[in-house]
Amino acid sequence: MREVAILGVGLTPIDEHWDRSIIDLAGEAIRPALEDAGVERVDSLIVANMLAATGSDGGQLNLGAQIADWRGLRGIEAYKVEAACGSGGAAFRAGLAAVASGQLDVALVVGVEKMSETEASTTTAGLATAADADYESAHGPSFIALNALLMRRYLHVYGWRHEDFAPFSINAHANAARNPMARLHRSITMEDYQRARMICDPISLLDSSPIGDGAAAVVLGPAAALGAGGRRKRVTVVGSAAATDSLAIHDRKQPLRLAAAERSCRRAYAQAGLGPQDIDLFELHDAFSIMAALSLEAGGFAEPGQGPRLGLDGAILPTGRLPVATHGGLKARGHPVGATGVYQIAEVARQLWGEAGSNQVSPARIGMAQNIGGSGATILTHILRAS
Amino acid sequence: MREVAILGVGLTPIDEHWDRSIIDLAGEAIRPALEDAGVERVDSLIVANMLAATGSDGGQLNLGAQIADWRGLRGIEAYKVEAACGSGGAAFRAGLAAVASGQLDVALVVGVEKMSETEASTTTAGLATAADADYESAHGPSFIALNALLMRRYLHVYGWRHEDFAPFSINAHANAARNPMARLHRSITMEDYQRARMICDPISLLDSSPIGDGAAAVVLGPAAALGAGGRRKRVTVVGSAAATDSLAIHDRKQPLRLAAAERSCRRAYAQAGLGPQDIDLFELHDAFSIMAALSLEAGGFAEPGQGPRLGLDGAILPTGRLPVATHGGLKARGHPVGATGVYQIAEVARQLWGEAGSNQVSPARIGMAQNIGGSGATILTHILRAS
Repeated sequence: MREVAILGVGLTPIDEHWDRSIIDLAGEAIRPALEDAGVERVDSLIVANMLAATGSDGGQLNLGAQIADWRGLRGIEAYKVEAACGSGGAAFRAGLAAVASGQLDVALVVGVEKMSETEASTTTAGLATAADADYESAHGPSFIALNALLMRRYLHVYGWRHEDFAPFSINAHANAARNPMARLHRSITMEDYQRARMICDPISLLDSSPIGDGAAAVVLGPAAALGAGGRRKRVTVVGSAAATDSLAIHDRKQPLRLAAAERSCRRAYAQAGLGPQDIDLFELHDAFSIMAALSLEAGGFAEPGQGPRLGLDGAILPTGRLPVATHGGLKARGHPVGATGVYQIAEVARQLWGEAGSNQVSPARIGMAQNIGGSGATILTHILRAS
Repeated sequence: MREVAILGVGLTPIDEHWDRSIIDLAGEAIRPALEDAGVERVDSLIVANMLAATGSDGGQLNLGAQIADWRGLRGIEAYKVEAACGSGGAAFRAGLAAVASGQLDVALVVGVEKMSETEASTTTAGLATAADADYESAHGPSFIALNALLMRRYLHVYGWRHEDFAPFSINAHANAARNPMARLHRSITMEDYQRARMICDPISLLDSSPIGDGAAAVVLGPAAALGAGGRRKRVTVVGSAAATDSLAIHDRKQPLRLAAAERSCRRAYAQAGLGPQDIDLFELHDAFSIMAALSLEAGGFAEPGQGPRLGLDGAILPTGRLPVATHGGLKARGHPVGATGVYQIAEVARQLWGEAGSNQVSPARIGMAQNIGGSGATILTHILRAS
């Protein structure tokens, strides 16, 4: 298996881009990614997208060929990967395999999502397709309701108070305030968190990530082609693993454990020859604050039920021992669902290159990105290393 | 890059399976595929599906994790690949890269589609998402209308008569009549073809493939693990390539050339060190009879404009020099869109193992499968070899 490096990344700001199509957004991430990588052609385009088929405008499949054509890449291989909100991580892993195998040399992974809809109910219905249609969605819960069940249970079992989750959101907002690509640029206080409107008890507005329109692109190639003494550090993928769990949360023996995260972390750590103590920063999937806590526990950074402690003791801050959501996370950078996993990889790469600007943390030699599809059903863990 | 072998295949009959869900169908292909391969566990499930997100029942994404869970594989990696009707071939290629790279050892690729809908218009609208939503579908043409434009132009430019395409359909129906998995079991005559109801001039009912519900599964693993002297010949993937073209057919300089097929064939031939003269059978993508002709030309089996000649001179028959649609093809085996590419691979493998029953052709040492997404937008070509 060839060692694979990140050659370049490109991002769009996450916002309500009413004036841009999916193709436009993809192009605005692809162009800077190719420039950053210093390549003009790629062999394959893998698109990560969740909702383009379900939009109120009638839907578009075959996005791979369409984006390749309209972004000046007509003729290359292209297809789409979907694993709900885990689409970005899954597409990255597919690109990784293609390059590692020698099937091709340069792969472009672009995550793109357009979620602004005239009717918010269209987006809510689209997101519900990540849950089990027969055994969950059919009974009416939205995606946030499923996460609220988890958080309610967690508070009950472990005895935390709602405000103990505030540090996750406060950290994410503070980091996003310095990230020009982020959806939200307002720092928040504990008082803001406590006064926030309740959306689905116990999940308030400030426990929830905002959706948005955006695209992120990553160019992958063989590490050997980079040569020595380039303009920046070499960032390679040293761990990559994926695992699943039941879609329906009621069908898990331990609903408060992210079994798929535990499994994929274990494998990724083993591949990299590393453990949680070696990770300098962690881009976790904080779609809701409860998911931040569960991810930290699954990754071995905290014991089960103790995730909130890493927030309360400041470990997750940019200056802490395990910075998370360094560019704002899903919570405040924004969560354009199918694109999120690619944003995470790009953010880790920028940290490892030392190009994260005012979001830079130090040290930043080894970073982890974890992308979740559904309420923990599909989880992809990647470890990147600078050398 | 490790050499990759087909370890086993499994198929469901293609029909209107009103009593089965997508999960049921997937399971009915997965179970026999795992038995055929002699494995109980796999490392990864890659689902090929086009329409589950757009169905009238509200849609289901995250199919990878869902199918893995319900078919007894909870915990393994899983995600979905989509490239419209080319989804099956694209998923197979992703599985191939995963095994070839050493990222994992055993991959299960399952193509599954459920197209029976109370309202046929739902399926027609779903299929239209393979075309360009802004520049084709917005103007109203269904998918068959786009193919009719191509066929009309082809008849005009090259001077063929409509009935010159009859041999493609007659051959497909005759082969399907002997295949228990096929959707249609009625042989047809030239008279049937000529009297067939016109659907979208010049495409008649007997130029068109029937949709259907069905699933096909293929298990992939490293060829080296097979050892010597197994119960059957070793079937390995010796060529794999994908290419794209514009989604919109009006946007191609030569709409009567399948540029993406030419490109992917050229690459697959080069990888295999083979040419069209070496191919013993060809599972082509005859969604409409015009596509059979264009595929034969793109594959180098006929000069541009001369595809129908291979039908008229009997070359495509099971006894001819290039048997096509040996199990009935899309035309009569049926076209459960996202699953079709996996059916094709499974059919080629069975031919090369000599396990194609009354559909067996001889010689069958090298077989090619070609899967098309959209009206030629995404084309995947695979060459398999028995040894």
